[in-house]
Amino acid sequence: MANTELKNDRFLRALRREPVDVTPVWMMRQAGRYLPEYRASRAKAGDFMSLCKNPQLACEVTMQPLERYPLDAAILFSDILTIPDAMGLGLYFSEGEGPKFKRPLNNLADIEALPMIDPLDDLSYVMDAVSVIHKELAGRMPLIGFSGSPWTLATYMIEGGGSKDFRKAKQLMLDQPEAMHLLLEKLAITVAAYLNGQIQAGAETVQIFDTWGGLLTTSGYEEFSLQYMRKIIQQLKPGADGKKVPVIVFTKGGGLWLETMADSGADCLGLDWTIDIDVARKRVGSKVALQGNMDPTMLYASPKRIREEVKNILSKYGSGTGHIFNLGHGITPEVKPENAGAFIEAVHEFSAIYHQ
Amino acid sequence: MANTELKNDRFLRALRREPVDVTPVWMMRQAGRYLPEYRASRAKAGDFMSLCKNPQLACEVTMQPLERYPLDAAILFSDILTIPDAMGLGLYFSEGEGPKFKRPLNNLADIEALPMIDPLDDLSYVMDAVSVIHKELAGRMPLIGFSGSPWTLATYMIEGGGSKDFRKAKQLMLDQPEAMHLLLEKLAITVAAYLNGQIQAGAETVQIFDTWGGLLTTSGYEEFSLQYMRKIIQQLKPGADGKKVPVIVFTKGGGLWLETMADSGADCLGLDWTIDIDVARKRVGSKVALQGNMDPTMLYASPKRIREEVKNILSKYGSGTGHIFNLGHGITPEVKPENAGAFIEAVHEFSAIYHQ
Repeated sequence: MANTELKNDRFLRALRREPVDVTPVWMMRQAGRYLPEYRASRAKAGDFMSLCKNPQLACEVTMQPLERYPLDAAILFSDILTIPDAMGLGLYFSEGEGPKFKRPLNNLADIEALPMIDPLDDLSYVMDAVSVIHKELAGRMPLIGFSGSPWTLATYMIEGGGSKDFRKAKQLMLDQPEAMHLLLEKLAITVAAYLNGQIQAGAETVQIFDTWGGLLTTSGYEEFSLQYMRKIIQQLKPGADGKKVPVIVFTKGGGLWLETMADSGADCLGLDWTIDIDVARKRVGSKVALQGNMDPTMLYASPKRIREEVKNILSKYGSGTGHIFNLGHGITPEVKPENAGAFIEAVHEFSAIYHQ
Repeated sequence: MANTELKNDRFLRALRREPVDVTPVWMMRQAGRYLPEYRASRAKAGDFMSLCKNPQLACEVTMQPLERYPLDAAILFSDILTIPDAMGLGLYFSEGEGPKFKRPLNNLADIEALPMIDPLDDLSYVMDAVSVIHKELAGRMPLIGFSGSPWTLATYMIEGGGSKDFRKAKQLMLDQPEAMHLLLEKLAITVAAYLNGQIQAGAETVQIFDTWGGLLTTSGYEEFSLQYMRKIIQQLKPGADGKKVPVIVFTKGGGLWLETMADSGADCLGLDWTIDIDVARKRVGSKVALQGNMDPTMLYASPKRIREEVKNILSKYGSGTGHIFNLGHGITPEVKPENAGAFIEAVHEFSAIYHQ
């Protein structure tokens, strides 16, 4: 579906650094546990992965925040660990401990034996979810597809779950860099095909979540994370309208490396809250759009304080094009839905003056 | 004890940006669980706080890494949470969950009721430990005293322990900034007196651990963390030799803010591993010494790889004065003692050429 057919195309216009009426806004993890209607859908599904694997239910929860709030983009409801799961690592969620793998990768032999998958086939439930959601949206606003970055997927696959310092992954990276590169190469090929499948199924934008790139050194980030995101971006195909599909790269904790990220081919950089957005804009010049960057814990403050912070970030950005408002990381389960609403409404209310 | 009386004064010379023969090195948490002799001392003490509170045992574990490795500084064995404990919050350690407080601070009334303590009296066990260690060192090398930063202490005091996103602390900061400032003011006064007590008892340097400052926004960091560290630094008294005692400020995740940190009155900035040390040096000019910055997970790699990384960081720093080698965060319990040894020896071995 072409950009021009969308009823609300603010988000895509901002990604392309074109003028908008108000600053577009969405929230990472906007379909999530902070919403009672999400918790009801999840209870219906049984568990989290059953929710991801059922295209109708994935569509249902994707639409929920759009019914409540004047958001400017929808994001596919899914998980970043679908790819390792399809590769046979056995994803499961243990209560209070987050995602785990039954069969983590322990050595080069495991990495060599890791099967290559065809996301169109092996992750057809994701492609189906994108199609169903795209149809349900009916041009109301754009749909964002996404994937974890190769580095981020690799850390979970080697650790067997989350970790404080990712020592196993780093140990492999340091002592057997060729094994790590083989894994990242396999993942980059798969992620590119996965995102291309989502684009083909109707995603108008894609975001790469590099949640753990910020734990690397500068040279480690370039060699083991950014390099592979660059390769993915080079392989992305145009959308149904023949236009380039914008790519957002979000490296949490990547504030020191914005210049090299802006040279990765990304159209937009996601920012966490530790960097001032005006400083970020100066550092990247006019190369890319910027997405962010309110601290998600701000949503635990009062609506009054939330509104102040929105004003503050908007005034830092000023009247330039290319700003998409978002949180600096995903919204958390204990946030009150009305606080999320105060945030989203404030973005539209206070940004109009910057777009006259 | 005056600088000139120390048998090994490399560390102090580097802090003052004076020439040295080789780059001095120490490790945050160098007296710790990765050493079998430490685990034996701790078993003898019963629990962690009993170890901290017994000056003889605190001295014993402080000396252990110095016996094993050619380190250039000793650091007081203690915990950053001694101050809140002395203020009556009831510190305890629950297995696998880290430090906790029985009576966390919930609101302004709790903060107003928080008693001011006299560290010389109420934390006399810390002052005793410094004296005993200083005597035991007998001028062999300098002793580092330390404290948590007011912001870092405040986060634990409000959360009641560690936290992923410190939402309670941030909520108080955002909605009742005057309450947070009152708490930080109380803590800054106490930390200054605490560090002055350690200096009086024989600490030749002090380090402020701002473990959680990096989770703030740029303006939040300046207002709620750096401002109070600046106040502490201004109140520090000279050492026994009448000279200014050097202060190291370590904000984990503070790489974006080095310029303002260098203007805080600190003599040295501690760096985590996410920033290149040559980039850091360019950004702060000649104002301060720099401490760091090898990724502590590097110690899980092979001694060969560890030695390469030491070379790499040394070559980035080059031949300038003012480098103290350290890890970018504390050494972790599962590191092999011989890997720590490979690290420390490599620093001396490969740095001589930069000091000719």
